[in-house]
Amino acid sequence: MPHVDIPSKLPGITGLLDAWPEPGKPVRDVTQFILRGPNTLTEGERELIASVVCTGNECQFCSNAHVITAARYVGSVDAVRSILSNPFGGQVSERVAHLLTIAGAIRTSGANVTDEMVAAARAAGATDVEIHDTVLIAALFSYYNRYVDGMATDLPSDDMYYEVLADRLTTDGYIRKEAASGTH
Amino acid sequence: MPHVDIPSKLPGITGLLDAWPEPGKPVRDVTQFILRGPNTLTEGERELIASVVCTGNECQFCSNAHVITAARYVGSVDAVRSILSNPFGGQVSERVAHLLTIAGAIRTSGANVTDEMVAAARAAGATDVEIHDTVLIAALFSYYNRYVDGMATDLPSDDMYYEVLADRLTTDGYIRKEAASGTH
Repeated sequence: MPHVDIPSKLPGITGLLDAWPEPGKPVRDVTQFILRGPNTLTEGERELIASVVCTGNECQFCSNAHVITAARYVGSVDAVRSILSNPFGGQVSERVAHLLTIAGAIRTSGANVTDEMVAAARAAGATDVEIHDTVLIAALFSYYNRYVDGMATDLPSDDMYYEVLADRLTTDGYIRKEAASGTH
Repeated sequence: MPHVDIPSKLPGITGLLDAWPEPGKPVRDVTQFILRGPNTLTEGERELIASVVCTGNECQFCSNAHVITAARYVGSVDAVRSILSNPFGGQVSERVAHLLTIAGAIRTSGANVTDEMVAAARAAGATDVEIHDTVLIAALFSYYNRYVDGMATDLPSDDMYYEVLADRLTTDGYIRKEAASGTH
């Protein structure tokens, strides 16, 4: 049960964004820009970066939502989980594996990112902007995870909710298309 | 030295917001709304909530900036540090002390917020919206801290920088008034 009354019936972050749209709208905007805007990282790679943070932070709603969304790009939930548990297993490029390592480090503290991690990412071909964007995505999902779990939001009553959400996140992205749409 | 080239000479978050305004603008907007918008928590109380997160996360730039900004409302940096080290020492209300406890819990994980913490805050007079806003502020500064430290941003060469920044944050708030203003 949520810690306080959330004036929305929607679960997880969708309920918080629905109930508190004034802070929600700009956060949607930055998410849309960094996860769906023009970028040399694919949308799938960026969803993997989000997923490594959400799963590491053990935010159940966010993990389910982003692992399932990443799966739409990567092929399957099993493939996503395999990448997250072993980024250097050959399913993503070395460059992306190093970026996932950086993202995983940030979720507990930005100070965990070492010069060596950054040098390794760069040696594998990561650009400065890609490293920046990885840091920003990891920080952003550290926000989402804490907001969702700090409020003790409900999980959906039906796991199909995540599939519908993933449909929207892969088509419309993070911008709300209509009032009370229930999108992320 | 920053992990990657930051195309701005400004230190800490000010350089990141200056260099990457597209994700920066919406984050400024949510910060302005939640720290400076209409609220039953005073601006000073909200800066204390930001400060407890920044100091707990050991983000040096953010801690200095927000402790000095909170001091403009509370009276002195010593008073702020005293409140942060002992929220229940009588310098702030019990209600605010409980909200600071919730904020301090969230910075490592939202799941650290217990039903007991929330019940105690409510018993001391905190409203649901105040508890929500505390969670949101704590999550937001968890974002800032990770972005700033994950990029290994520079500190200002002169501590006066924080004073000028605090001047702006207490007068103009978090919205950029002019291009290249160097505000937060």
